[in-house]
Amino acid sequence: MSNINAVIITIGDELLIGQTIDTNSAWIAQRLNELGIDVVRRVAVGDERLAIINALDEESQRASLIIITGGLGPTSDDITKPLLCEYFGGTLVRDERVLAHLYELFKRRNRPVIERNLKQADVPDNCTVLFNEMGTAPGMWFEKNGKVYVSLPGVPFEMKHIMQHEVLPRLKHHTSDALVHRSIVTAGEGESFIAEKLVGFEEKLPAHIKLAYLPDSGFVKLRLTGRSQHPDMLVAELEQLQSELAGILGPIVIAHEDIPMEVLLSRTLLEKKQTIGLAESCTGGFIGHTVTQVPGASAYFMGSIVSYDNAVKQHVLGVPATTLTEQGAVSEATVIAMAQGARRVLNTDYALSVSGVLGPDGGTDRVKVGTVWMAVASATEVRTKEFRFFYDRERNKEMAVKNAILFLWKFINGKLSA
Amino acid sequence: MSNINAVIITIGDELLIGQTIDTNSAWIAQRLNELGIDVVRRVAVGDERLAIINALDEESQRASLIIITGGLGPTSDDITKPLLCEYFGGTLVRDERVLAHLYELFKRRNRPVIERNLKQADVPDNCTVLFNEMGTAPGMWFEKNGKVYVSLPGVPFEMKHIMQHEVLPRLKHHTSDALVHRSIVTAGEGESFIAEKLVGFEEKLPAHIKLAYLPDSGFVKLRLTGRSQHPDMLVAELEQLQSELAGILGPIVIAHEDIPMEVLLSRTLLEKKQTIGLAESCTGGFIGHTVTQVPGASAYFMGSIVSYDNAVKQHVLGVPATTLTEQGAVSEATVIAMAQGARRVLNTDYALSVSGVLGPDGGTDRVKVGTVWMAVASATEVRTKEFRFFYDRERNKEMAVKNAILFLWKFINGKLSA
Repeated sequence: MSNINAVIITIGDELLIGQTIDTNSAWIAQRLNELGIDVVRRVAVGDERLAIINALDEESQRASLIIITGGLGPTSDDITKPLLCEYFGGTLVRDERVLAHLYELFKRRNRPVIERNLKQADVPDNCTVLFNEMGTAPGMWFEKNGKVYVSLPGVPFEMKHIMQHEVLPRLKHHTSDALVHRSIVTAGEGESFIAEKLVGFEEKLPAHIKLAYLPDSGFVKLRLTGRSQHPDMLVAELEQLQSELAGILGPIVIAHEDIPMEVLLSRTLLEKKQTIGLAESCTGGFIGHTVTQVPGASAYFMGSIVSYDNAVKQHVLGVPATTLTEQGAVSEATVIAMAQGARRVLNTDYALSVSGVLGPDGGTDRVKVGTVWMAVASATEVRTKEFRFFYDRERNKEMAVKNAILFLWKFINGKLSA
Repeated sequence: MSNINAVIITIGDELLIGQTIDTNSAWIAQRLNELGIDVVRRVAVGDERLAIINALDEESQRASLIIITGGLGPTSDDITKPLLCEYFGGTLVRDERVLAHLYELFKRRNRPVIERNLKQADVPDNCTVLFNEMGTAPGMWFEKNGKVYVSLPGVPFEMKHIMQHEVLPRLKHHTSDALVHRSIVTAGEGESFIAEKLVGFEEKLPAHIKLAYLPDSGFVKLRLTGRSQHPDMLVAELEQLQSELAGILGPIVIAHEDIPMEVLLSRTLLEKKQTIGLAESCTGGFIGHTVTQVPGASAYFMGSIVSYDNAVKQHVLGVPATTLTEQGAVSEATVIAMAQGARRVLNTDYALSVSGVLGPDGGTDRVKVGTVWMAVASATEVRTKEFRFFYDRERNKEMAVKNAILFLWKFINGKLSA
């Protein structure tokens, strides 16, 4: 194979009725991209014989690699394995390694093995079995007419493990052109404002390099993508363009790579050997959760006082009762007292506080739904900011969390305008 | 139209390179299902002329409703609007209502309107404009050869708003057969154990009713789906089968509807008029975040002490220093002291505590990666439980959160076995 195109087929009624969000396809696409493999389409079909066969027939016309996930469970709605076996003209045979692993897994979980489970050790005799360390359903690798078909379980962590240990190493031998991405993350301006600044830049972009705009909760990521048989030259070319981009956009650039805000914050804190604490109200713990998604966060994150109720703001953080009654829980005075209280209680270099009304209810004439106050405190300084978000509860919460981490990061890096 | 089938086409390079997870399709599918419209396929293609045209040509053969999302932004990689206009043989004209709204939006955000934005007010003259209250890109409704094509922006909250206010009301006039779901949520047993118990039940299921297994982090949802022109009879039939299912599965059933654990907990607490508090360590605030996803959580959720660092466990929650040094932060003694401390500090009826090692690092001989201890305390009782999760950091955290909320809910409802 050369210049491989891939198609991802996901199988399962749960995808078509919307009971499950497909996170597998995005993850698979990222991994394939890293190998220079382009995903040209993604298709989702139900647990239905004809729909699966049609998808296999049609999509194999468009690509030389077909990645299939889902439909491999032990229950009767999972029909993919026997169907693939038949589609490629094979017979099911029991695999001893898979069987032994299955007994081991059930033993570890103290469950009896039943006939239904034993069937999971049956594999087509015309495929390469992709051993599933994390679960009971093995993956399968078929080849036919120069095309590769890979079938994987739909459970994300099982799929990922098989991809990493069995599929990607095999695919490395098949790829040629490299696909390279370079990104920039901006904060504080909209997509069209940025696009306007980049008109000249876009006009002179060479044909083999594409620029994409990816707006997300007040941030806009810009991604340059190039394809070439000479990856070293391409990388140099992309990095040149990337720094041009950064030069044009100036102060709104916060990162020169596609990186989440919490990882950026982590780097700053590890480098400065400083610590943070939080006082969260409306975000309910989401900021702490986001900060601790980064392995090693314990080096700088001491904790969070989630003071959802005013009594907790008062008694744990020490917000004066008069501030709460006179200024209200969602006010500049309250977030200042919360941040200073959190810094004292958690004994950290910095503390960030957030209090707001996310909706759908809880708004008043004075404090409208979507209003969120934030403060950051150090030993010598406090800064505050008021936000107003116009979306639903879930999205307002997300916006508050991302902007709060950005606010803290800017404070620590001296990037807040005076 | 009768017995409508639908196809969802999502447009955007960000979907194919995996930079964005498609949450729109699942949401759209759920809403269509509620109207009795079956989604038969989902297809994702890039921002590429030929790929989009092929998808439109092919998918309109399979369904009479084609929902398209994405590709409507103000930047040059968004090519969907002019393409659709041409595909259906129209011309772009400026829409005065959309234009006025656009000026209003930019004014609210204190941004100047530039030429690029004005183009967002251009719409095909052969479509019904679907007004976008939440953003600048309007949706479009085309009809051709008895098929309906709906184009919506890819930004989730904009898409949802247009679906709810413009698309679904129009679709209601087109549907006939009702599609009805009834679900049961179980906890504590695996998919194959349950399937084994349901062999007899599945054999006698009528042809127009399907049973699906949806495993998720230690829970298994069972979904019965039926289709009929007589929805009242179908509902009665499904509810009869649902209670049969519940009877067969007995104590592992925790809900008779498809409902998240945090909503179940919310109902219990509102009914009992009781309050909860949390002491989180490894979950970093994720439990508090999950609990506060439910609107109105302030009635029963007082707060969470996220004691990531041992100093916070000791000084805020009052875990004795000797317990931390002798038993360790991840131990039964520590979670008991954390829960009792949180109950006291937050002044609640119940407190739940969690401490564990999620990985990838931090394991020891005594406390292996994946070990999570939990405790629940009331005024008179403390119960503890040790878990061991075998996945990656992110999934271990998710499992810990879901199981923690289940543990608390069982405790409050007297459902923990002695």
